Amino acid sequence: MQSGKMADSLNCDLKSLSPLQLFERVTEQGEKVRALKAGKAPKDEIDAAVRMLLSLKLSYKTTTGQDYQAGLPPKDLALINNGTAKEEDEDLVDPWNVQTSNAKGVDYDKLIVRFGSSKIDTDLINRIERAIGQKPHHFLRRGIFFSHRDMDQVLDAYENKKPFYLYTGRGPSSQAMHVGHLIPFLFTKWLQEVFDVPLVIQLTDDEKYLWKDMTIEKAYEYARENAKDIIACGFDINKTFIFSDLDYLGTSAGFYKNIVKVQKHVTFNQVKGIFGFTDSDCIGKISFPAIQAAPSFSSSFPQIFNGKENIQCLIPCAIDQDPYFRMTRDVAPRIGQPKPALLHSVFFPALQGAQTKMSASDPNSSIFLTDTPKQIKTKINKHAFSGGRDTIEEHRKYGGNCDVDVSFMYLTFFLEDDDRLEQLKQAYTSGELLTGELKKVLIETMQPLVAAHQERRKQVTDEIVKQFMTPRKLAFEF
Amino acid sequence: MQSGKMADSLNCDLKSLSPLQLFERVTEQGEKVRALKAGKAPKDEIDAAVRMLLSLKLSYKTTTGQDYQAGLPPKDLALINNGTAKEEDEDLVDPWNVQTSNAKGVDYDKLIVRFGSSKIDTDLINRIERAIGQKPHHFLRRGIFFSHRDMDQVLDAYENKKPFYLYTGRGPSSQAMHVGHLIPFLFTKWLQEVFDVPLVIQLTDDEKYLWKDMTIEKAYEYARENAKDIIACGFDINKTFIFSDLDYLGTSAGFYKNIVKVQKHVTFNQVKGIFGFTDSDCIGKISFPAIQAAPSFSSSFPQIFNGKENIQCLIPCAIDQDPYFRMTRDVAPRIGQPKPALLHSVFFPALQGAQTKMSASDPNSSIFLTDTPKQIKTKINKHAFSGGRDTIEEHRKYGGNCDVDVSFMYLTFFLEDDDRLEQLKQAYTSGELLTGELKKVLIETMQPLVAAHQERRKQVTDEIVKQFMTPRKLAFEF
Repeated sequence: MQSGKMADSLNCDLKSLSPLQLFERVTEQGEKVRALKAGKAPKDEIDAAVRMLLSLKLSYKTTTGQDYQAGLPPKDLALINNGTAKEEDEDLVDPWNVQTSNAKGVDYDKLIVRFGSSKIDTDLINRIERAIGQKPHHFLRRGIFFSHRDMDQVLDAYENKKPFYLYTGRGPSSQAMHVGHLIPFLFTKWLQEVFDVPLVIQLTDDEKYLWKDMTIEKAYEYARENAKDIIACGFDINKTFIFSDLDYLGTSAGFYKNIVKVQKHVTFNQVKGIFGFTDSDCIGKISFPAIQAAPSFSSSFPQIFNGKENIQCLIPCAIDQDPYFRMTRDVAPRIGQPKPALLHSVFFPALQGAQTKMSASDPNSSIFLTDTPKQIKTKINKHAFSGGRDTIEEHRKYGGNCDVDVSFMYLTFFLEDDDRLEQLKQAYTSGELLTGELKKVLIETMQPLVAAHQERRKQVTDEIVKQFMTPRKLAFEF
Repeated sequence: MQSGKMADSLNCDLKSLSPLQLFERVTEQGEKVRALKAGKAPKDEIDAAVRMLLSLKLSYKTTTGQDYQAGLPPKDLALINNGTAKEEDEDLVDPWNVQTSNAKGVDYDKLIVRFGSSKIDTDLINRIERAIGQKPHHFLRRGIFFSHRDMDQVLDAYENKKPFYLYTGRGPSSQAMHVGHLIPFLFTKWLQEVFDVPLVIQLTDDEKYLWKDMTIEKAYEYARENAKDIIACGFDINKTFIFSDLDYLGTSAGFYKNIVKVQKHVTFNQVKGIFGFTDSDCIGKISFPAIQAAPSFSSSFPQIFNGKENIQCLIPCAIDQDPYFRMTRDVAPRIGQPKPALLHSVFFPALQGAQTKMSASDPNSSIFLTDTPKQIKTKINKHAFSGGRDTIEEHRKYGGNCDVDVSFMYLTFFLEDDDRLEQLKQAYTSGELLTGELKKVLIETMQPLVAAHQERRKQVTDEIVKQFMTPRKLAFEF
């Protein structure tokens, strides 16, 4: 199979098409799939047609900014969408959507230019190594955390013995988290260990209540359940404060004061531009960005920082959260606060391919932290998009494509052994290693990893969650 | 002087004019005033021309919704104002503006129709009298609280021994409060006494921070200072909880949960329609209405109501606050909460006349709670708009006009003795009582009233304020 390359050349062709031409191609392909299914065509043929259909729909969405809707040509869509279609070759990245037409995933170098952040280059990685006196995390070495804002200032502060703190978070949209959700937490845990700094973790249960069809009680329950998975990553209870917005907003006057300060300095026009809100959005959504901004300021946590206002904050997060913090950094000097620094990660790919972020709502798009070894095996074998060739002969001859192979991508995230990873890459690219064999390595990597997580999670009692979520002094003096 | 009647007939004429014709009338009148001043015309003549100019400007504003600006005809204004001019004869009433061209003040009967509330009629007043077994407050008897929503349901509940609670509030925009600010509190105190129910008083220091050029610290300081004046009205510390938003939001998870529930069920389109917000307004203003709405639900005060969700709320307030509670009543059933009931008061007139509400920022527009007896005397004598005639002879012959006389209006608010008030009215209307004599009665009424308030306020220590503002159980079981 050459899906990766096929998708590339397909994209090339599609770029030259107008939205209407694309619409017609999607419609035609849909009819073709229906005809094949009706005619009981061979499974392979149907699958290939479906893949093409999905790819066309994705291109359509990337070009028009709207999902394909049968019978609703793009001219009508443009009217509905108020004419705000994106540039044809731009990836769509905001806190609620990640879409690209490229099987390799989002073009992160372009994103750095578009977002105005800085690339994490070898110089910065070497500087981190010197500062902490040990080898940087493989997420840094392998470009999984690839972009930053003001990380050099954080290192300046650290080298001058000035304090800083870490802030990350999660929107608790469902009880079950997948392995992709762990990426920022695993990295944050490492940062906390090597720099020995306080950490605050925000669970935006209020956001989930506002965005989803969900009760407040359910959102809060998910927050507590997700806290268990986060704690199971191994955070130090003496150095970490986890909070639900619904809880903590009612416990900390400092937090609300920072929220209202941010809310005074951001207009609807600005959040409209940054987040795409419309006049039909509820006022809760419109003012929410201030709630994600406020933990960037140490005065939101008087119990931890002894009321100190000016402690530098460093935020490790996936790049799709950057819009919140661009806004925060814009507001910070106007309310007399330091700008938070950022470390951005790439997205964790869905099993089906790197075009989209994993989704907690589709069980087959991800390996969940609750999956059994058997489920993990089945999912990887059945759903992990392969960069291998259609036949063993072709594979041996031309080799596989690691750039689009999801199993290989997952190993980049979770196989810590650099040498082993490099061996696998060479063997797969040369055709020596087959897709099934690569998948087997991934299965054997993920099964113990998930099992160990489940074992640690079992140890996390309600009492421990309560302790982590109680506002209190941490093991640092300020 | 016949200013009242003059204004009435003037308004009649002006109603038939287009915005452009009005603009020309204002411009002409301005030139006339300048010419009279330049020609050193008699003071009376200049004064009359200035009064006419002010009246024309007010009509212009009422018609176009914009201040008159020399050289900027209404067509341009309409463009600036996005074409949202009001109906010509409508009073402008929202939480930030009260404007009418009528010297008698706002047309409250029209307001009841426009707002869709109900008139407090004799039947309702009689029912209240039966329920409480005593004479209703003179604010009710005299139509100062003139409109309501669902007060009959509150009485149903009361008669069936079901609990309810009172909620009122204040935006602490400055340290000094004027006597007009006391109206809702004096009435609320009476309601609390006759019904024996819990009372919560919201100080929206966050609102003032968002709307004014003011620090958070200053807004909070004003809240605490205003709390002293409110407490000096004589509220029972065991039955009353006073809270600053900036404080209480960080102390009560119940309060924030209700805020976010309201925020989920109100769109920007809705607050735009109700409050006139624009895209350039900060997101804090846009989401604020939910913060004024939330105390209408008893679950915002778990410490008082033992977590009970369904306790009926009754809100005494000036009619300009009704938009907040129309919104609240619209949302309530959608979040499973009872609609708050309301009792609306008229506006307290400025000394200069009933066209506008008193303003805390103009010291001469009001009698302040900090004024000395001498200041009170001077202000009333110098600034209180008179319904008397131009000469003693005319006054004796034709009598004064109580409908537009501000001294008489103030006595309606503060002179409790019904018989005395009726005597004064008859004597003034018949011409027996002169303006100076009526003003003397007002001075003698206000001086001891303000002095007594100041005396009570001195007794209100920081410790007492702290007790009132501490979230706690009150003297009621739920």
